Amino acid sequence: MDFGTWCSDHWPAGTASITPMNPSYLIAVDWGTSTLRCVLMRDGAVLLNGPEGPGILAVPPNGFEPRLANETAAWRSEYGPIPIVLSGMVGSRQGWREVPYQACPADVRSLAGALCEVASLDGAPISIVPGLVDRGRDGHIDVMRGEETQIIGALSDNHEAPTTLVLPGTHSKWADVRDGVITGFRTFMTGEIFGALTHHTILGRLMPDKTSAFDGDAFERGVAHGAADGQPGALMHRVFSARTLALFEDLAPEAIHSYLSGVLIGAELVAGCASSETAPDGVSGFMIIGSSLLCDRYSRAARYLGLPARVAANDVAAMGAWRIAQLAGIMTGNR
Amino acid sequence: MDFGTWCSDHWPAGTASITPMNPSYLIAVDWGTSTLRCVLMRDGAVLLNGPEGPGILAVPPNGFEPRLANETAAWRSEYGPIPIVLSGMVGSRQGWREVPYQACPADVRSLAGALCEVASLDGAPISIVPGLVDRGRDGHIDVMRGEETQIIGALSDNHEAPTTLVLPGTHSKWADVRDGVITGFRTFMTGEIFGALTHHTILGRLMPDKTSAFDGDAFERGVAHGAADGQPGALMHRVFSARTLALFEDLAPEAIHSYLSGVLIGAELVAGCASSETAPDGVSGFMIIGSSLLCDRYSRAARYLGLPARVAANDVAAMGAWRIAQLAGIMTGNR
Repeated sequence: MDFGTWCSDHWPAGTASITPMNPSYLIAVDWGTSTLRCVLMRDGAVLLNGPEGPGILAVPPNGFEPRLANETAAWRSEYGPIPIVLSGMVGSRQGWREVPYQACPADVRSLAGALCEVASLDGAPISIVPGLVDRGRDGHIDVMRGEETQIIGALSDNHEAPTTLVLPGTHSKWADVRDGVITGFRTFMTGEIFGALTHHTILGRLMPDKTSAFDGDAFERGVAHGAADGQPGALMHRVFSARTLALFEDLAPEAIHSYLSGVLIGAELVAGCASSETAPDGVSGFMIIGSSLLCDRYSRAARYLGLPARVAANDVAAMGAWRIAQLAGIMTGNR
Repeated sequence: MDFGTWCSDHWPAGTASITPMNPSYLIAVDWGTSTLRCVLMRDGAVLLNGPEGPGILAVPPNGFEPRLANETAAWRSEYGPIPIVLSGMVGSRQGWREVPYQACPADVRSLAGALCEVASLDGAPISIVPGLVDRGRDGHIDVMRGEETQIIGALSDNHEAPTTLVLPGTHSKWADVRDGVITGFRTFMTGEIFGALTHHTILGRLMPDKTSAFDGDAFERGVAHGAADGQPGALMHRVFSARTLALFEDLAPEAIHSYLSGVLIGAELVAGCASSETAPDGVSGFMIIGSSLLCDRYSRAARYLGLPARVAANDVAAMGAWRIAQLAGIMTGNR
């Protein structure tokens, strides 16, 4: 796919008053359920980070294009037309346009080939990266939107070695990568279950404050309990210890929050490693991608459990968008 | 402890106008967080069931005695003074009076010895059955209030064989019993987690109605998925299938509720059996105690998994209160 084909409907040929698109720039937009993040890139490196904007649930059905135009106006005014690549839930049914999931195995090339152009600004294309679906063994189906772009970005310098990538969050993703190809992945609802347990079950009642300061010792105690051997249903028993230990004053009320976080993250790490094709022995290394708070917690839990983990660089979403845009030919025209 | 000692402070000696207490009657009260249930018993059998009353959270601190007097007034007026035995969260800090937990191992005799008299009505004692604490292996601590009385009731006719008893609910209890002694137990937060997942996570969003009709096929499909081998953390991955299967129209929206229920109950059954001392091979029989709806679901899941389960008789809470009261000597005086 070359630039000419890609933009044929949108390039304002003969409109001399519009500045020609500058091919060495890209605006990478991670537009999720609750947040919009714009990054201006030049020649594959981050130039500027925009302020956080509203997630897709706060945008009305016809409001995506004007909102994006508004968020990027200053950059376009300064640098001229710039192609924009969006990733995340903006490509879901609740977003700007529903972009069909691409099937695993998938890599930067297949994602670039399935990039979906939804509009243009100043003649430069606005495209959405498709999410991925994994139809794995035993009827397993799993989906992601946004994480595929982060994974592609994290692999920039290291796409040869088999790796398991962990993207902790509301819905943690564990992805297997071989030779730069995402072969499959699993979702763990760790963050959302932690929130539901904390705010909507008896476990939260003894917590004096749902945002207590982090207690590293209590966290590691939870990690050990969550990571111990057992059947899947044992988790529903183990989380109850956050109540009983506190009832018997074996755990301070301020520490329950950290302890429960440890139980769930410890359980996720062990099950995630066990489910990974690229870490088949359950103890191979993995790479963590996420906010510094979550990367710190997952790294600490991994260290405690003796699992070799490393943290990916920042800006992986923007790096992934750049790599996909480059292969899609969006910026090749005038380079 | 005999009747005379027990009631010495309360028996209205010389008050000729009050009918003497009828020793062959007992009012058994299961007073939990959300419901009050009174049962009038005569000679160890249920005579009358009272209407449901308010749980302890709906009763003000000084309101327990008047409420109980009101609920039992008609029976006391007809049959004279009747001893009353309460079980459940009424003995917790949020209840009438906090009654210290009794430690496992515990049996009907130790519970009878620790019965706590809190007041009297017409000179007949009102007593609360203590809850149990299990301080098991590896720092495990677990608690129950109310279930101990149901277990004692369920064992009436069968207290010799080692048995695992399952009491499904908001907080399911799995208790090991040998020779009539409760040796230990574990709590699984199955019911509360099901509620939190259904009402407070993304899994509920695709459910058209949180009270859909029960779908047996979807339930069993969930049971199979929840019961499969895996690590504890795998549960946080498996529940996500309630969303992905529905997203890809492999599960009808009306069936998600039953499917998710199956995933959790299947996981609980396998982990409960594995954790049981009295069912060490994970496939020995167990007895289910609970509402007919939950007994049906747990029995169906057990049958599907090839686990031999039987359902306890009704009225086990009242039967347990009777056995405890009898051993405590409350009714022996005039028998």
